[in-house]
Amino acid sequence: MTEKGVSRKLGLDKNALDELARALGKEYVRTNVEDLVCYSYDATATRQRAMPEVVVKASTTDEVATVVKVADKYDIPVSPCGARSGLSGGSLPLYGGIALDTTRMDRILEINAPDLIAVVEPGVVTKRFQDEVAKHKLFYPPDPGSAEFSTLGGNVAECSGGMAGIKYGVTRDYILSLEVVLPDGRVINTGSRSWRTVAGYDLTRLFVGSEGTLGVFTKITVKLIPLPAKVETVLAYFTTSADAVDAADAIILEQGVIPKTLEFVDSICIDSVRGYGGIEIPEEAKALLLVDVDGDPHIVGRERLRVEEACKYNNAFQIVIAEDAEKRNAVWQVRRVISPALFKVAGKKLNEDVCVPRSRMKEITEEAYSTSEEYSIPTACFGHIGDGNIHINFLYEDGNEQQAKVYEMLDRITKKVIEVGGTISGEHGIGTAKAKHLPWEIPPQELELMKSITKLIDPKNIMNPGKIFVP
Amino acid sequence: MTEKGVSRKLGLDKNALDELARALGKEYVRTNVEDLVCYSYDATATRQRAMPEVVVKASTTDEVATVVKVADKYDIPVSPCGARSGLSGGSLPLYGGIALDTTRMDRILEINAPDLIAVVEPGVVTKRFQDEVAKHKLFYPPDPGSAEFSTLGGNVAECSGGMAGIKYGVTRDYILSLEVVLPDGRVINTGSRSWRTVAGYDLTRLFVGSEGTLGVFTKITVKLIPLPAKVETVLAYFTTSADAVDAADAIILEQGVIPKTLEFVDSICIDSVRGYGGIEIPEEAKALLLVDVDGDPHIVGRERLRVEEACKYNNAFQIVIAEDAEKRNAVWQVRRVISPALFKVAGKKLNEDVCVPRSRMKEITEEAYSTSEEYSIPTACFGHIGDGNIHINFLYEDGNEQQAKVYEMLDRITKKVIEVGGTISGEHGIGTAKAKHLPWEIPPQELELMKSITKLIDPKNIMNPGKIFVP
Repeated sequence: MTEKGVSRKLGLDKNALDELARALGKEYVRTNVEDLVCYSYDATATRQRAMPEVVVKASTTDEVATVVKVADKYDIPVSPCGARSGLSGGSLPLYGGIALDTTRMDRILEINAPDLIAVVEPGVVTKRFQDEVAKHKLFYPPDPGSAEFSTLGGNVAECSGGMAGIKYGVTRDYILSLEVVLPDGRVINTGSRSWRTVAGYDLTRLFVGSEGTLGVFTKITVKLIPLPAKVETVLAYFTTSADAVDAADAIILEQGVIPKTLEFVDSICIDSVRGYGGIEIPEEAKALLLVDVDGDPHIVGRERLRVEEACKYNNAFQIVIAEDAEKRNAVWQVRRVISPALFKVAGKKLNEDVCVPRSRMKEITEEAYSTSEEYSIPTACFGHIGDGNIHINFLYEDGNEQQAKVYEMLDRITKKVIEVGGTISGEHGIGTAKAKHLPWEIPPQELELMKSITKLIDPKNIMNPGKIFVP
Repeated sequence: MTEKGVSRKLGLDKNALDELARALGKEYVRTNVEDLVCYSYDATATRQRAMPEVVVKASTTDEVATVVKVADKYDIPVSPCGARSGLSGGSLPLYGGIALDTTRMDRILEINAPDLIAVVEPGVVTKRFQDEVAKHKLFYPPDPGSAEFSTLGGNVAECSGGMAGIKYGVTRDYILSLEVVLPDGRVINTGSRSWRTVAGYDLTRLFVGSEGTLGVFTKITVKLIPLPAKVETVLAYFTTSADAVDAADAIILEQGVIPKTLEFVDSICIDSVRGYGGIEIPEEAKALLLVDVDGDPHIVGRERLRVEEACKYNNAFQIVIAEDAEKRNAVWQVRRVISPALFKVAGKKLNEDVCVPRSRMKEITEEAYSTSEEYSIPTACFGHIGDGNIHINFLYEDGNEQQAKVYEMLDRITKKVIEVGGTISGEHGIGTAKAKHLPWEIPPQELELMKSITKLIDPKNIMNPGKIFVP
């Protein structure tokens, strides 16, 4: 479907550039190489780069629509982007063309406490939004690891998951309505400002997670809930990964607690973060669980005890409780620095976000570790064990030999994940990074149906071509 | 889009009937009028009827696929149905053809506690499924008012909402994966058995709520959560509707409690159910709230106190607490009998399920009551006030004059609902009953996009034609 993209000769029509500059102002239409390079990569930096031919920075829906109309008129690919912190190459301008930056559209247009909704522009940084609504005692639960820098537009495009998914769901569960600039420049609105609607097909959720291939989101209406009065954190150390996985199961299945977060961290991760965080990690810790419980203060206390009980019963040898913000922050630092800290182990990292039915978690981590041993490539696992979404990180050194090994390992893990009923992506999206593996999971008929939707909505294939589906 | 349907001459090809009988057995291919009549209406009985030409009762995915292939081959409309208890005409065989009954597909195929999922066939009755998973200490939260007789297939087709939506979400939030027989008879599988997936477009949620127009659901994989240990009910009586609405707001916004259910019942409903339920309703009660709180027993106790406080502060003059199953049942009886009890007021009833942003609730009920007065047609309001989803019931007598009045009133309310940012359907679906009003809410471009999806997936327009979109 992207033959056009593949065979496309670089070199933008000068008229197209003029039209863009007239509409947005020269300042926001950049073709100098310093700018272009900045838009040539995302957080998958080690895997793939692609240079746009022009970077445009739109500040209104009208401007986005104009950019897309120019792209449509001159047959130029458009890759929308926010903070470009994605982990699947979703924002890379794979076939050159226009990198459409939406970060100037960073206004929180409305926080409506009585209606429990908010309306934002796509360039709003997730954490900023979370903090703003918290001032109104409201809560926007989706909390991707990238929250401090990623944008809500990007979160919607990839259907970001994050820490609080087990209890509160993921981005798709909070999007009520979208203003979307379609690939021909028309502007539509999906969904409703109401909490519920079944008026016609669920276009909102067709667009959520569509990775910029069906349109550009210019306004996002989200559902909010009352901010839980209290959060406490339980950090439990184990001497084996298996015990930590069993404890996670016991929290949910035996204690009946669905905590706000239920994060698993393995031995390699722990070794990497030692010394970074605000707390001292015992030498014998080979795995840990990081569990937030939230709600009414009394509820929190009781749930915390249940979490502790499940951990103790499954051989946790030390438990740290963090009740106040400062201590919670220090404890959570352990989790937050994992991703960068893993570069201590090796210069390169390939981070997967597979998700499996909960009971198959051990099989997957065991497969990861045995593959690691076989290939002599350190492999670290951490993530959202509560909902089966685990980050498997292959840690390797630059060079073709190691790279080839890692790709073989990835193929093996991918096969296993699919074999146990799992999915290749729980929260990062497919982008370019996983497009090869998508047909391993999604059978031909289902894939054709998806592609036919792309073709229906973007017949000229100018919206973020080359993403999700292998060209 | 349904010209074919509209102009279609009734009279099935004898070869088609033979092929159906060969595949399913004669017993399950019925053309006698007694059977056909049974499939000519749903719970919107007062509004519209439509006779199928044949009723087929499939028992397997293969049989469903065969039926749909025969329909495709001979160009016969197929209307899938479950219990036919829908409230929007979604299952009516509007253009004759095949009524495809899925109620023989009533097996619960898997309840997987460790994975927190279950796999069911579409004909499983919702309440039976809720009870079965409860035996495993698991919880399937979507709880439409029709749960005791409606099927999960129907719930998925309409994206049913129900009582517990405010805290737990609606049907779409629990569907992980669907096996779907497409309009050409091919069988596909969407989604994943994992709790999270972002692998390609969200086909699952495109099919949820598609009202049988895109395919027939033959297997449904749902997400389950641990069963809350305790539920308690607060029944609060008020002397005005306004106080009850304010109390509902205070529960959420001031007390920060998101209860399991938050149901509003107005004066006409109360008068209708007096004497039916297991409890005595005080004479001066002109509105009531029915609030379930659930979770850990201690949590429940605390949340209940907060709910009581919010109600008292907003002038509740009497509060009934139901802690055990028997008393809860008696109290809930009040809510459950409303729908049939309203026939005491008048012989006919038109039941709407509009949903508005929460703060606009009073405007809508006030509009309903003032319209009621103007037209001298009693109008009763009850429903899921927590998420803004209110059932407005026009109660009238048979005859063209009253009917015409009611349709005028409905137009007025519909306009008001859309004006305040609401939606014409929160949980019943559009079907035939609301197809006229859909274009009032959904603008032309968005509607065209929806229709183009129908055309893409069902180019011959044989799947449940005439639904959602005005022919």
